[in-house]
Amino acid sequence: MTANTPLHRLGLVEMLAAIEARRCDAADIVESCLDRIASVEPALGAWVHLEARAAWLARWQRFRSSHRDLPFHGLPMGVKDTIDVAGMKAERGSPIWRGRVATEDAACVARLAAAGLQVAGKTVTTEFAYFAPGKTRNPYHLDHTPGGSSSGSAAAVAAAMVPVALGSQTAASVIRPASYCGIAAHVATVGRFSLRGVMPLAWSFDAPGVLARSAADLERVHAALAGETAPPTAPPAPTRLLAFDARAFGEVDPAMGAAFESALAALARRGVDIRRPADPKAGAAWPALHQRWMADEAAQTLAFETATAPGSMSDELRKLVQDGAAVTPAERDELQARHDGARAEFGALIEGCDAVIAPAAPGPAPAGLQATGSPFASRPWQLLGLPQVALPLTRDAQGLPLGIQIVGRARSDRHLLGLARWLEREMGWWWLPPPGLDRGSASGARIGAPVFVCRHAQRV
Amino acid sequence: MTANTPLHRLGLVEMLAAIEARRCDAADIVESCLDRIASVEPALGAWVHLEARAAWLARWQRFRSSHRDLPFHGLPMGVKDTIDVAGMKAERGSPIWRGRVATEDAACVARLAAAGLQVAGKTVTTEFAYFAPGKTRNPYHLDHTPGGSSSGSAAAVAAAMVPVALGSQTAASVIRPASYCGIAAHVATVGRFSLRGVMPLAWSFDAPGVLARSAADLERVHAALAGETAPPTAPPAPTRLLAFDARAFGEVDPAMGAAFESALAALARRGVDIRRPADPKAGAAWPALHQRWMADEAAQTLAFETATAPGSMSDELRKLVQDGAAVTPAERDELQARHDGARAEFGALIEGCDAVIAPAAPGPAPAGLQATGSPFASRPWQLLGLPQVALPLTRDAQGLPLGIQIVGRARSDRHLLGLARWLEREMGWWWLPPPGLDRGSASGARIGAPVFVCRHAQRV
Repeated sequence: MTANTPLHRLGLVEMLAAIEARRCDAADIVESCLDRIASVEPALGAWVHLEARAAWLARWQRFRSSHRDLPFHGLPMGVKDTIDVAGMKAERGSPIWRGRVATEDAACVARLAAAGLQVAGKTVTTEFAYFAPGKTRNPYHLDHTPGGSSSGSAAAVAAAMVPVALGSQTAASVIRPASYCGIAAHVATVGRFSLRGVMPLAWSFDAPGVLARSAADLERVHAALAGETAPPTAPPAPTRLLAFDARAFGEVDPAMGAAFESALAALARRGVDIRRPADPKAGAAWPALHQRWMADEAAQTLAFETATAPGSMSDELRKLVQDGAAVTPAERDELQARHDGARAEFGALIEGCDAVIAPAAPGPAPAGLQATGSPFASRPWQLLGLPQVALPLTRDAQGLPLGIQIVGRARSDRHLLGLARWLEREMGWWWLPPPGLDRGSASGARIGAPVFVCRHAQRV
Repeated sequence: MTANTPLHRLGLVEMLAAIEARRCDAADIVESCLDRIASVEPALGAWVHLEARAAWLARWQRFRSSHRDLPFHGLPMGVKDTIDVAGMKAERGSPIWRGRVATEDAACVARLAAAGLQVAGKTVTTEFAYFAPGKTRNPYHLDHTPGGSSSGSAAAVAAAMVPVALGSQTAASVIRPASYCGIAAHVATVGRFSLRGVMPLAWSFDAPGVLARSAADLERVHAALAGETAPPTAPPAPTRLLAFDARAFGEVDPAMGAAFESALAALARRGVDIRRPADPKAGAAWPALHQRWMADEAAQTLAFETATAPGSMSDELRKLVQDGAAVTPAERDELQARHDGARAEFGALIEGCDAVIAPAAPGPAPAGLQATGSPFASRPWQLLGLPQVALPLTRDAQGLPLGIQIVGRARSDRHLLGLARWLEREMGWWWLPPPGLDRGSASGARIGAPVFVCRHAQRV
């Protein structure tokens, strides 16, 4: 970083390094993030609940006085409003739960809080993490969607309000907004982490996700979630990657298609063996299978709201529940058989490869705030319950981010995050701050001399 | 049933038949159950929260006036206190959550309420569905444990306070208390039903369970949970059963061993082919594998309580969390590999068989209320995530019930419940009311002439 880099722009690992090298205090970073929130939140609408600055600082000081030595030093995180935080509102993007206050921390929040991340507030979600959007805008173009359902978490991290935010994914709710907002994200293997305190949508696919500005940051947060203390090892270089260009799943934007092929060519030049499925239609049936199964489970999950407040559900959500209620036992058996088949097919395809590489979304964030974009590029991987990491790849002609993702075998999250760290370092797939949001920004604290070397800021 | 059978003693299906044949009104059954609760609850302690009679009847009448036509006619059910019911306390067997009131129905509660079962109250659970017991006594011998963790649900159904109750199982928390209390129970395939609103313990093994007085009753409740409306088909006869005598898992009581072998001989006489694993130690490693994996997940699940109120956790629970926190990434990989191996081993063993048949517990309910008995007879099946149905088999010399269970392939719940219905009908494995609890019992409403034919009551 240069001497002039505002502290809120640092990645999480960079913030920790700066604190540990006594270049700044955690309090300086917290102040800088709060300034940044005050400055850009009116334009972005990433938050649904933010504690007043004075109250937040008072709580933070209490935490600091007793927990100064925790690994994350009390740095702030955002938490999607479908995830409970004790004493904070958790309205789930639905008028049905307006005013609901959670009485306990979700397991993922408790784990991260125990490691020293402090909740700055709750971020905007679509209705019950499904489709009906909230108020959030894309930091790279205010008239475009940030993606959903973890809309506010993605925008808050992309705009450097907080270094990290929690989300959850059932179809594409973390990887897609990360791609649209030009940041990194990790969706955990389904079943790897507790979902206590996270509003479910379809439990066979629900997984917690972390959004941050680099794979190195994601790796650090993953270690805390997993309760691991060993330092990260040197990132492994991929030998062979299985490329899915996503055209079997749906229509891919030409700019995304070109950027993806160009990334594959660059990887090949670095000596990575790029394989492709022999059948270009491989996996074409997976998105529809995921959609139908998800509807079946959503109808069960939302039984209480369906019984007590159907008039307060959006048309889209009511249709999801109706679709799910129509699944018969015979169809459920058939879905199960097809699911088993998809797993076996994927197992054969991935044989000998380190991971899948694929576009993280069909294209850049679509214009408009009435919808959050198509989830088809993530449905296949969520169907299979696999860990996924998105990285910012490049931007299109309008300056909108385009993301790339890698997908690993079940429970290979640590290895996958290592591969992602290699990719970001060797390929330069880094977050770049959204232009145009800095006008009128409060300056925030800045690092003084001596200059601290920071990969991100070198490109800023 | 004879003309003198109290209504509360009928099974759920019998109650529905009596209502539909206009032999009685649902109100008569509700009154009879409330009388029975008032009479035997002081001795048994099955409930942790019971609404006052007048309030319950008023709520029930409001329900009835608008929902008279629902399949279950507003009949009462018990709900384990780890499962949320909107507006009712849900204290999870822990002082940490004393006074906690749930704001929403668990998905399983919402589904059954939508079909017309009404919650009569919350039943006693051990602390967070783990080991530390509540106040409940065994209806067959007040100085013996009812088993856990679904202690109150089992006792309430066994003592004919309600025809059905909800529980949950992570190790043996439904099948064992059902066995100790001489009733039937179904644990669903892990992942088949939503666990929204159910306090988790270890999500890879947590499953909802239903406790009732017959397999026919369980089948009817399962259909409602699954949102199915088709009437049950004729129960299928088993052709070949795989017998696990449980001695590979732990020490089996001689009375249980003898009763189990006698049941197998009776099945063989009925033409059922009884197979046994070629290796008598097959599965011997499964209980310990389950125990270790469960500890790993419990440490995550209970992160909030561990951080905020460790002093209010029992020694047993703290030890579980400590054990889990010690699991390393390398050990987790090893557990995963062993789990995959156990699934493959079981798949080979069950080949060609309709189901497993096994003792439902190591023996009769142990004396004393300080512990809830050993879970080893259920750990293997919960490790594999399989559906299980327990049936009352016989009683030991002291009059304590001994249960038997069948275990099916994943997601074969409907077929398994059909097999169980065949077994109860053909083998006579029925609930028998606990003796000695009727002295001083309020009489309750009784069926008038003409006499309604009832299998249960014929043996009462």
